[in-house]
Amino acid sequence: MTTVEAAENLIHQHTISLGNELVDLDQCTGRILAESITADRDFPPFDRVTMDGIAIRYQHLEQGGTSFRVTGVQAAGSAPLRIEQPDEAIEIMTGAVLPRGADTIIPYEQLIISGDQQKTATLSTSTVKGKNIHRKGSDRKKGTEILKPGAVLDAPEIGVAATVGKSVLTVLKPPSVAIISTGDELVPVEEIPLPHQIRSSNALTLSSSLNEWHIDADRFHILDDLTGTTNKLAELLENYQILIISGGVSKGKFDFVPQALEHLQVKKHFHRIKQRPGKPFWFGSHHSGTLVFAFPGNPVSSFMCFSRYMKPWLNRIFGLPSPAVIAKLAGDISFAPDLTYFAQVKISMEQETLFAYPVEGHGSGDLANLVDADAFMELPSGKQHFLQGESYPVYGYRRSVLSNLS
Amino acid sequence: MTTVEAAENLIHQHTISLGNELVDLDQCTGRILAESITADRDFPPFDRVTMDGIAIRYQHLEQGGTSFRVTGVQAAGSAPLRIEQPDEAIEIMTGAVLPRGADTIIPYEQLIISGDQQKTATLSTSTVKGKNIHRKGSDRKKGTEILKPGAVLDAPEIGVAATVGKSVLTVLKPPSVAIISTGDELVPVEEIPLPHQIRSSNALTLSSSLNEWHIDADRFHILDDLTGTTNKLAELLENYQILIISGGVSKGKFDFVPQALEHLQVKKHFHRIKQRPGKPFWFGSHHSGTLVFAFPGNPVSSFMCFSRYMKPWLNRIFGLPSPAVIAKLAGDISFAPDLTYFAQVKISMEQETLFAYPVEGHGSGDLANLVDADAFMELPSGKQHFLQGESYPVYGYRRSVLSNLS
Repeated sequence: MTTVEAAENLIHQHTISLGNELVDLDQCTGRILAESITADRDFPPFDRVTMDGIAIRYQHLEQGGTSFRVTGVQAAGSAPLRIEQPDEAIEIMTGAVLPRGADTIIPYEQLIISGDQQKTATLSTSTVKGKNIHRKGSDRKKGTEILKPGAVLDAPEIGVAATVGKSVLTVLKPPSVAIISTGDELVPVEEIPLPHQIRSSNALTLSSSLNEWHIDADRFHILDDLTGTTNKLAELLENYQILIISGGVSKGKFDFVPQALEHLQVKKHFHRIKQRPGKPFWFGSHHSGTLVFAFPGNPVSSFMCFSRYMKPWLNRIFGLPSPAVIAKLAGDISFAPDLTYFAQVKISMEQETLFAYPVEGHGSGDLANLVDADAFMELPSGKQHFLQGESYPVYGYRRSVLSNLS
Repeated sequence: MTTVEAAENLIHQHTISLGNELVDLDQCTGRILAESITADRDFPPFDRVTMDGIAIRYQHLEQGGTSFRVTGVQAAGSAPLRIEQPDEAIEIMTGAVLPRGADTIIPYEQLIISGDQQKTATLSTSTVKGKNIHRKGSDRKKGTEILKPGAVLDAPEIGVAATVGKSVLTVLKPPSVAIISTGDELVPVEEIPLPHQIRSSNALTLSSSLNEWHIDADRFHILDDLTGTTNKLAELLENYQILIISGGVSKGKFDFVPQALEHLQVKKHFHRIKQRPGKPFWFGSHHSGTLVFAFPGNPVSSFMCFSRYMKPWLNRIFGLPSPAVIAKLAGDISFAPDLTYFAQVKISMEQETLFAYPVEGHGSGDLANLVDADAFMELPSGKQHFLQGESYPVYGYRRSVLSNLS
């Protein structure tokens, strides 16, 4: 048996290479950029007016003038007009280009405008030369890198890409993943199980979890039969970058997964971790580059192994930070065995502090219990009592509560 | 001008009704459940064996026996065998049904098994009656509600739904939303703008933000023309539950949106908020039930208004908690005007505490600045200096960092 730390290190020593793919900008939310995005123009691309009002030449004020003849109106989106004489002004709108010959914008709030055919604008307060102009290139110069490869494409990044004219982006291509459930006791979701059967749920839980990385996994089921298991895994090892297996890794007479994988020359890096739940976890790699994460079949164990080991590893291969964050225990937990214990907790931000409330479970079989919790808290071995106020890492599994706080 | 609090209250006084829709279970991740899910069987559905080993009748140990004749093997997924005599044992696998006549499971780790044709299992340690059995119905009884309407469907909920045989779920149907950008200066992303033009980006930023609620918004553009604006908005008011307008709400001569909306009898609830950025925000409701969120055209202003006002409101109509959380300011910020200031910050969990680091910006025009930040921190009016160590609410906009911590 290996320790939690050793198992984590062994997993992190392995990687797979992600390709790139082109995706329409309006489908890129949540994807990881795989190119560099540079400013195709200055930001802003021209001296941009930031208030509605008039554009003037400040010189006229310096020379004692207080009123301007309004000689034109310039909207956003129009080519710039020109001021010919110092006492001229052009009515101007937010987002417009600064008119030629003008150097200052006076907002309507600071003006009295009179006249009908020939309007006159009189300043009602003092102003400063150059006011209310967002200068060309003051945010970013043309050619500056605005987004680096590896950037997560949230809404602001989508906006920036649109601004520089990228309607299609090169993003990381998610790996190909096969999820394989095992076990003669499992029937598909649509079926009514016999009294000694249960419905298959792990494959769907895992596949749902993988949505976070935009991975669209294929799902398979294999029966507890060595030949059948070996043949199916042989095929999948050739066609997928990652196999996630659920079940068949314990000590039972019909747990054929380790045997089949060894027969297929998948190198075992560890089998069994000093932890509860999730002890029977098996991890290996194939010479084709395919990695095999074989989790216990128990729903809570399988989901814990995914959350604690595979999620951080996936974040790593996508260039994202570790999902682990520290929370303060909000109640006592006791756990006697000399194993790392992953307690189910509900997490909660209270003021600026993250708390973890223990959720009472019925052991690793209680799938329904997971819905009352948000995260697994990692409580180290070599200690039996974990007290309120102590801090430990948590691995969250809810997008809406806490996913990658780090 | 209204205050931030009053504007928020006015928005929260309005709602729209969300319908339901049926969605295949493997497409339900992140959706909101709109039905009650109950256990169709007990959880677990039978006395479930939790270790690989032998099933025995404890009575034999009580009567001084230490060895058992192994008379059969029972796999998970097989109908239960029967123990006829007290000294009989059945080899049994995790996930199997407890054999009839058996009441205790002894794991292989506690056994010495000898013999070939006729195996004998001898106990190497003491055990307790009833060990290693996950009792029928001990987690949930048949008929118990496991998921309530309103539950967010993360991976564990998908697993629970699979377990009870729900391959299709009734979930909340996202509202119909039209995003309307305005402004003659805007050209589509694919085009090369003239020197006085810019590409349209707000509609894509907003549409990307709406992905979080699985809203697939339609995007429109209208020019700065009163008749065109009025006609287009008239049509959209009939066909969508929510209009989000970007631009055309300031004091400019070509800002026709408020006028067009009033002409269309959209009741104005507020126009202009005592805040920076985002002052010109206009909000109203139409007798058809359609709500109109008209944001300023400036990219940062528009995105701030979305993050601070619309996101909490959307969470509310979907039954989700407020996205606001408290963070500790990690640097000083000064802001003189008597307005609520939304500072761009980068947030970071350090140990169990959430910190907000001010990000230096170039004012509300600097879209590229948003990519360096994660959230807006709400700094109240009536105060000019906000000091390191003080706590204020933040509104995050990154799924991967912090979205709905609460």
